Amino acid sequence: MTSRDGYQWTEKTGLVQGVPSIGVIQPPSNIDQAEEKYDVIFVSAGYCGLTAARDAALSGLKVLLLEAPDCIGGRSWSSNIDGYPFEMGGTWVSWGQPHVWREICRYNMRSELELSYDFSSGVNHFTLTSKDGTRNMSHEEEDKLMQSALEKFVNVDGQNGKEIMPNPHDEFRNPEVKKFDKLSVADRMSQIEHQLSPDEYTTVLSFVVLCSSSTPDKTSFYEFLHWWALCNHCYERCIEYLIKYKFHGGQSSFAIKFFQEASATGNLSYAFSTPVSIVKQTAKQVEVRARSGAVYHGSRVISAVPLNILNDIVFDSPMAAGKKAAAETGHVNKCVKVHAECRNPELRSWTGVNYPKGQLMYAIGDGTTPKGNTHIVAFGADHGRLAPQKDIEKTKQALQDLTKMDLERVVFHNWADDEFAKGAWFFSPPGLVTERLDDGEQSKATFTSQTRIGQLAGEASSTVRSKKGQEQRSR
Amino acid sequence: MTSRDGYQWTEKTGLVQGVPSIGVIQPPSNIDQAEEKYDVIFVSAGYCGLTAARDAALSGLKVLLLEAPDCIGGRSWSSNIDGYPFEMGGTWVSWGQPHVWREICRYNMRSELELSYDFSSGVNHFTLTSKDGTRNMSHEEEDKLMQSALEKFVNVDGQNGKEIMPNPHDEFRNPEVKKFDKLSVADRMSQIEHQLSPDEYTTVLSFVVLCSSSTPDKTSFYEFLHWWALCNHCYERCIEYLIKYKFHGGQSSFAIKFFQEASATGNLSYAFSTPVSIVKQTAKQVEVRARSGAVYHGSRVISAVPLNILNDIVFDSPMAAGKKAAAETGHVNKCVKVHAECRNPELRSWTGVNYPKGQLMYAIGDGTTPKGNTHIVAFGADHGRLAPQKDIEKTKQALQDLTKMDLERVVFHNWADDEFAKGAWFFSPPGLVTERLDDGEQSKATFTSQTRIGQLAGEASSTVRSKKGQEQRSR
Repeated sequence: MTSRDGYQWTEKTGLVQGVPSIGVIQPPSNIDQAEEKYDVIFVSAGYCGLTAARDAALSGLKVLLLEAPDCIGGRSWSSNIDGYPFEMGGTWVSWGQPHVWREICRYNMRSELELSYDFSSGVNHFTLTSKDGTRNMSHEEEDKLMQSALEKFVNVDGQNGKEIMPNPHDEFRNPEVKKFDKLSVADRMSQIEHQLSPDEYTTVLSFVVLCSSSTPDKTSFYEFLHWWALCNHCYERCIEYLIKYKFHGGQSSFAIKFFQEASATGNLSYAFSTPVSIVKQTAKQVEVRARSGAVYHGSRVISAVPLNILNDIVFDSPMAAGKKAAAETGHVNKCVKVHAECRNPELRSWTGVNYPKGQLMYAIGDGTTPKGNTHIVAFGADHGRLAPQKDIEKTKQALQDLTKMDLERVVFHNWADDEFAKGAWFFSPPGLVTERLDDGEQSKATFTSQTRIGQLAGEASSTVRSKKGQEQRSR
Repeated sequence: MTSRDGYQWTEKTGLVQGVPSIGVIQPPSNIDQAEEKYDVIFVSAGYCGLTAARDAALSGLKVLLLEAPDCIGGRSWSSNIDGYPFEMGGTWVSWGQPHVWREICRYNMRSELELSYDFSSGVNHFTLTSKDGTRNMSHEEEDKLMQSALEKFVNVDGQNGKEIMPNPHDEFRNPEVKKFDKLSVADRMSQIEHQLSPDEYTTVLSFVVLCSSSTPDKTSFYEFLHWWALCNHCYERCIEYLIKYKFHGGQSSFAIKFFQEASATGNLSYAFSTPVSIVKQTAKQVEVRARSGAVYHGSRVISAVPLNILNDIVFDSPMAAGKKAAAETGHVNKCVKVHAECRNPELRSWTGVNYPKGQLMYAIGDGTTPKGNTHIVAFGADHGRLAPQKDIEKTKQALQDLTKMDLERVVFHNWADDEFAKGAWFFSPPGLVTERLDDGEQSKATFTSQTRIGQLAGEASSTVRSKKGQEQRSR
């Protein structure tokens, strides 16, 4: 099936909107006639909503799943072009992500992971373009440089962050850590710049800004510390947990499993391409109104829409103040992710950084397409932000600015301009996590993010289940 | 409540059988009259059976849970004495165990973990007793010694095992690794002993034998490589994933959550203190006969009993040949775990090894009891194996042989002599995993082990769910 989202450019076709994806659900809805009242209505079919909806359906609840895009998986979906997956959003997974890993095991997909990197042949080097010019170095030198720079960056406690955030899944275990949410990455850089070589300065900033896809002044130093802790306070694990293992068949090959399992219960009603506009609490139930005018009724609603579009839905009764303020602030991730298929097999083993000038600032050889071309994945952030759908020529130039390549195809989805996302994965500006989101676990459960996704899904489904338990006890 | 399992010694009471535990289920059964036919009968209330039974109950299936002991949690349960938990079996958990971690998040217990080690005051040293005598060293020296010795032990590929087992959760990704299941730990030691200092020799063997709780000749080198890979090929993670974080309220405070959630569905029937003797497949159903003579009927049975007692149940129709052979071979873990409460607050920061002579070979300061005493946890393996319930004086001496202490209390459960366990956590002898268990994932799903527990539980419940899905589709 073809999604209306995403873009593809080839010399022959020029820029075309829409890409094929195995995650597109057809028909887009299985509702002939809406039930009078669902047990739970889930808003969003990203992994958070999808997991919770599946578990609710398995529990025997009558579930309605409403999703704005035409495809499942939220900000993680793959286009599947000539049998090769280009990941439009979230890509990499690891056993270091406990909740994600649990689902991978559930669907027996452990052996379907493959490596993004392959340094076995080709140019086998890292290209660093900084304000001082361009030069190549070995991947060993790249790793050494990144590790050294990152360790200086996070070393606020003489323990590379282990003392200040000992338990990454209980992030405020040491409450002292909260003070670092007052600092931006720019603030932190000014504390340590005298300790950094020019190369270290460029690479640490490029790596951290790659994670936030924002600018140093809008990126919370605390949130990066949290990522670092989640990666076992270790550069090698950062690479392993963030950018090493991906699904052979793409993220949509994973997301579809949740949907199929939920569908098989017979308890799942769904409507894709159905953005929600109003969620209204009445005396006895919740009314959910779609933009189309359709109205659905449920005993409860679980919203798992991205933080940055939360305020585009009218919640009546209103959300908690902290939650509303958090949605007003929003997260800062404006990632521009661009795939290049190029006729340069030797680039399979290439990696590169072009910072701060590059409109695409970080890229790696990510695979070999069935034609034998190299697939390069490239990332841009909020500085000099590209809108590839508006300016494909600039985008092609930004790829060439990373390293010279013979382009056959460009594939992308612009998350920042997607009205149902308004950004890519969650990354917080200073103050957001500790001042607005930190009013207990529950307030976080509305927001999805790649790092928090499974945990939240677990909480959401657990809530549904315990409520069901209560009902059954009271019967 | 008091379990009939476990033993406690104090000077005043002498040795007494039975210890209090919050995991004892009272009344032991909620069955007034057995249902004519359950949807699924689960044999064993260890975490594997418990997780699967809970998920089945949540899915709306009529579930019967049968368990031989009087307490939930299988080989992981805590005695709770004067408000302090002594862990009788499995103790430590981590976010490095994805399936376990998912459940910890489900029950919102992330902040209930505490550290076993505390090196902040007291003697703050490691005591090594080898055939060359006894001496103390700092914990930094201990770590350096262990790391150096273990890295030599696992370094079969010049990459500390990363090449031979790159993906620990897909253990045969590099099938070359299977050859190491032909080697025992004794075989491997003879390959590298010329590289090891006498201290390295003692400490690496003590650590590996601690993991297997067997003897070097009966321990598969492959299985240790698997543990090492699961700990990110890194000594620091071995400590973190294996012996660092435990539940403030004990394992039984965790296990009881599964049971409570399952009970709340109204779908859970159960009978503790009810060992199963025969599982018989008839044309239309499965008949499960308890030792007591009681007979239960179900559409399906899921057995999650430990490998070493699998052959004590008659399965008719018989098990697959590989599975039966694996059960005949059995795993080799004969751990003797002994807790000492001693009037030596200074030992809180002590660790020690006494190998190969010590009947208790490894011990650490594990906590401070409400009285201000130090809690020491000590481990013995299969060499010179203790039976503490038969010889408490020898056991007390074995504790003193580790380091001098003023004993107030000794607490233990003897897993090797427990007829419903016949050993502690799974650890394989050479050949068991690759020659007997390696006939696909399904054959493994019968066996529980601390490292495999969550994964298997996930598979078990996934099986139940997909079957339910199939049924519903066919309605």
